[in-house]
Amino acid sequence: MSRPSGPGWQPDPAAVARLSASTTQAWAGPGIIDLGVGQPHASLLPPALFDVAARTEPWQDRYPLQYGVEAGDGFFRLALAEFLTVAYECAVDPELTFVTNGNSHAIDLICSMFAEPGAVVFVEEPTYFLALDIFRHHRLEVVGIPVDDEGLQIEALEAELQRRRPAFVYTIPAFQNPTGTTLAPARRDRLVALAQEHGFLVVADEVYQLLRYSGPAVPPLATAIDSGVVLSLGTFSKILAPGLRLGWVQAARPLLERLAAAPAIVSGGGLNPFTSAIVRVVLESGGQRDHLEHLRGELGRRVALTDRALRTHLPASTEYTVPDGGYFFWLRFPAGTRVSEWSEPARAAGVGFRSGSRFSAYGSLDDRMRLSFAFYEAPDLELGIRRLGEVIR
Amino acid sequence: MSRPSGPGWQPDPAAVARLSASTTQAWAGPGIIDLGVGQPHASLLPPALFDVAARTEPWQDRYPLQYGVEAGDGFFRLALAEFLTVAYECAVDPELTFVTNGNSHAIDLICSMFAEPGAVVFVEEPTYFLALDIFRHHRLEVVGIPVDDEGLQIEALEAELQRRRPAFVYTIPAFQNPTGTTLAPARRDRLVALAQEHGFLVVADEVYQLLRYSGPAVPPLATAIDSGVVLSLGTFSKILAPGLRLGWVQAARPLLERLAAAPAIVSGGGLNPFTSAIVRVVLESGGQRDHLEHLRGELGRRVALTDRALRTHLPASTEYTVPDGGYFFWLRFPAGTRVSEWSEPARAAGVGFRSGSRFSAYGSLDDRMRLSFAFYEAPDLELGIRRLGEVIR
Repeated sequence: MSRPSGPGWQPDPAAVARLSASTTQAWAGPGIIDLGVGQPHASLLPPALFDVAARTEPWQDRYPLQYGVEAGDGFFRLALAEFLTVAYECAVDPELTFVTNGNSHAIDLICSMFAEPGAVVFVEEPTYFLALDIFRHHRLEVVGIPVDDEGLQIEALEAELQRRRPAFVYTIPAFQNPTGTTLAPARRDRLVALAQEHGFLVVADEVYQLLRYSGPAVPPLATAIDSGVVLSLGTFSKILAPGLRLGWVQAARPLLERLAAAPAIVSGGGLNPFTSAIVRVVLESGGQRDHLEHLRGELGRRVALTDRALRTHLPASTEYTVPDGGYFFWLRFPAGTRVSEWSEPARAAGVGFRSGSRFSAYGSLDDRMRLSFAFYEAPDLELGIRRLGEVIR
Repeated sequence: MSRPSGPGWQPDPAAVARLSASTTQAWAGPGIIDLGVGQPHASLLPPALFDVAARTEPWQDRYPLQYGVEAGDGFFRLALAEFLTVAYECAVDPELTFVTNGNSHAIDLICSMFAEPGAVVFVEEPTYFLALDIFRHHRLEVVGIPVDDEGLQIEALEAELQRRRPAFVYTIPAFQNPTGTTLAPARRDRLVALAQEHGFLVVADEVYQLLRYSGPAVPPLATAIDSGVVLSLGTFSKILAPGLRLGWVQAARPLLERLAAAPAIVSGGGLNPFTSAIVRVVLESGGQRDHLEHLRGELGRRVALTDRALRTHLPASTEYTVPDGGYFFWLRFPAGTRVSEWSEPARAAGVGFRSGSRFSAYGSLDDRMRLSFAFYEAPDLELGIRRLGEVIR
């Protein structure tokens, strides 16, 4: 390596250009409306809340700058529990919370602390495709249990349990990714009872729990942590801002103590003391509550718009259930359709989607498609669906 | 779980008290001066820099609130490379940087991406004790290679390489934890050459590289990343604030691409976009450069003070080399001393330390002791060492 040329040192201008264009994760290419992206549109991100929080200088008493306690900052956990108690409509014990870098990190951490390499995990079929990658990275064997309109099919789970015991069952109980379905209350009870009976954990990724736009409220699996077998994962990624890398786990004390004993956390201290001190202010000021209300209204309107556009532009043979919450429509095309073969023509027509097979533990479900209504605003959503319809017809 | 009693809901007052006292990681107990704690004193943490950074509202253009690109925010990486180019006195390529949640996270991530369970890793004997825990958590077999006044003994490494090939060698090349020694330039060259010859990686934890108070400058192993076998780990934990959970890896492109492919990062996006946007302002404003200058002066004075106090209060038979940088003094007591047996009487006398055996891959070195001069200011440092002397005599 060469010596720098002093304070006037500048990197290669081409590198500067490349790096200046390298900020956010999704990048669909010019002219492409990628309805496959499961991320919030920039307009749904609230910078003003951080202006307000920063004015209180939450780092002023310095502890948010120090190595944090492994479970996460106590003051933040108090504010989180108070917010969740209202939002979840159930009393949340702040001492039974653990701060994470968001649900992807939480899933990774749980694999590392609760599953030996070679262990089996059960997932919903279909499920969040990147969770599949995390499980396989930890050398876990993934078994898919089918989902229907009421979520994970308990009979299929029971049948599989006759054959083998998983380290855990990974479920997205509310407004599931990708199907949009919610696990019915009776099934939740049965899932927890089976976990106790057979000795496995339930890892409940409750990422969309608070994004309900219609339909009845179903309490989160967080209400079942007293069972000792449930880990409930929550995150600010979908209700405030993904860039915070901030989330939480609720679970019984022995499970949380095990998470806090992860060697990298013992070494580096609790996750995100600095960020959580800022978000604590957002919670305490009521800013998160108000923003969530705003999000529900905005995303609920997009559900209606997406439904209308799908009925207008897609073949009448396309089946779907309008979701009551979350980010996604899950489309079913006539048997034999190979959705993945539409990817190239769709791209040429300026639209993207996620093929159903990406969400299957077995690479099946290629007659399905996931569309997100979160990453685009109304005009682009409508235009993207119109383009998709043209490709399909 | 019971329903909340509405907006007036309050958790158990005893829980509030416990959580309000649960913020930072180290807690020595009242009246104890724990010289075992390898963390910065609160007075070394600069809240004013964050006041200044926050006033620019770096989240205003929203991208720091979004899912970030896997390698980390491009603008932050540009600012980081410019800072490091001056601080490391060598040209740093911003495109060969990768943002992490600090070095503990980086070590954990590297284990997960570059070492199969059951693989062997070589470490310095002694080494950072919590890194040992991370390696063992990943089911890696740890082999210690002795350190002398010039760092890792290359002859011992060569002998061990005749027997087995490690996935990587973990080294803390500058102002090592716990010995304070710096790996000599000729040994660095030889280490890299051996890595190329035998096909292993060098994981260089350069956490103390910038905390040099005296002695000649030795370029970081980051200058050797063109070899394709070196990963250089840096962090803001020791130069700005541990609570940020922000660090970086420098390495050749194929190694960084592998880190960026970690499934949890692909799922959750790059690490800490929000925090890194704030720290970018601290870097660009010159605040980090000035604070580092301040830290060097302050910690350098503590080295001199600690040296004086040790010579005054400890037995003349106590051996040590005054460190040129970093956080630690590494004491050697007469052969046969069992330092760990002093722990209880020391605690009773109001002082703590880290026994040498904690830093050994084999639980040996119990005639050694690590003292940190970073977590206490002058009067407590002096008082702690006086108490330690009384216990030893």
